[in-house]
Amino acid sequence: MISTELDLLIKQFSRLPGLGARSARRIVLHLLKQKETTFLPFIENLQQVHDQTVRCSHCGNIDTHDPCLICQDARRDPHTLIVIEDVSDLWALERAKVLHAHYHVLGGHLSPLQGIGPDQLHIASLIKRVEQHQIKEVILALNATIEGQTTAHYITDKLNSLPVKVTKLAQGMPIGGELTYLDDNTLIAALQARIVI
Amino acid sequence: MISTELDLLIKQFSRLPGLGARSARRIVLHLLKQKETTFLPFIENLQQVHDQTVRCSHCGNIDTHDPCLICQDARRDPHTLIVIEDVSDLWALERAKVLHAHYHVLGGHLSPLQGIGPDQLHIASLIKRVEQHQIKEVILALNATIEGQTTAHYITDKLNSLPVKVTKLAQGMPIGGELTYLDDNTLIAALQARIVI
Repeated sequence: MISTELDLLIKQFSRLPGLGARSARRIVLHLLKQKETTFLPFIENLQQVHDQTVRCSHCGNIDTHDPCLICQDARRDPHTLIVIEDVSDLWALERAKVLHAHYHVLGGHLSPLQGIGPDQLHIASLIKRVEQHQIKEVILALNATIEGQTTAHYITDKLNSLPVKVTKLAQGMPIGGELTYLDDNTLIAALQARIVI
Repeated sequence: MISTELDLLIKQFSRLPGLGARSARRIVLHLLKQKETTFLPFIENLQQVHDQTVRCSHCGNIDTHDPCLICQDARRDPHTLIVIEDVSDLWALERAKVLHAHYHVLGGHLSPLQGIGPDQLHIASLIKRVEQHQIKEVILALNATIEGQTTAHYITDKLNSLPVKVTKLAQGMPIGGELTYLDDNTLIAALQARIVI
């Protein structure tokens, strides 16, 4: 005997990734108990983000500006493109503050089984960017999965005829990793790519 | 290099109970990728729930109506009150569909250390309801914690002079529970309250 709107809100929360019915109820009650200090600012900002976010027409990032803040950033190396599958990967690289370059979001990986071919990804626009903007290096920061690596091969082929260096992320032991817990494939990759000290 | 609004939204999500930075980012991206089908209906319903929910002036439940749908429900036993600490307990009892009675939400438990005395809880209004509405039974469905049981004792004392039966939830083994994993206190309580078969 709970009102329809409340019931719907709990269902909506429980469908978000990582949440279930129990955590959804906890969150809804938390919001209801702090209506002015938490609930209202939360709604206002959700509305703002919903209304203002767009896909960056240059790189595919999601931002409140188009071109996005990263594409507008003059301090970044304009000749290096980091190719990633998803915006979440862009966020991960930005958090690591590893490289001040520009990005290109593919929007996924090749997956014939799911009907995702080159035309479903932003590969044509990548080639165009490389051709038109004197890109010197394309870093393929794709997932170390079969699909990610297949996509990397496809893009490498496509860029083959252009005067651009194509690189990919190193594979090996994660920092802090322990041999005992490492999976076989990573162990093999780390051994094959071993470095003279 | 993420826009201020997006960054704030991730922070707001990560402060909700049970969520952290990683799950907050996942949820925000999920919403951004389904702006019309998920994000917009979610905001609309959040706004509706925020605007319409009130504390029921009879029982302390949170609902879009005052009196709440439960207090308005004529099919419920008007002479039995189930006393609970929090609205989440009310939801739990309603899910279990165990008893069609009315509720009284205390709003917490007695806790001298946190400065919560009888005046901070809805105890006076409980006594008043019992006196004015010919309540025949008060079921104290409080938590089986020290604070919950202290609160139960206090309320039992207060209701002592009134012609009302005061009961509390049984204590013992949870259904499906295994002896090996039972804590000592539950085991002792279950033994002491043993039943002839």
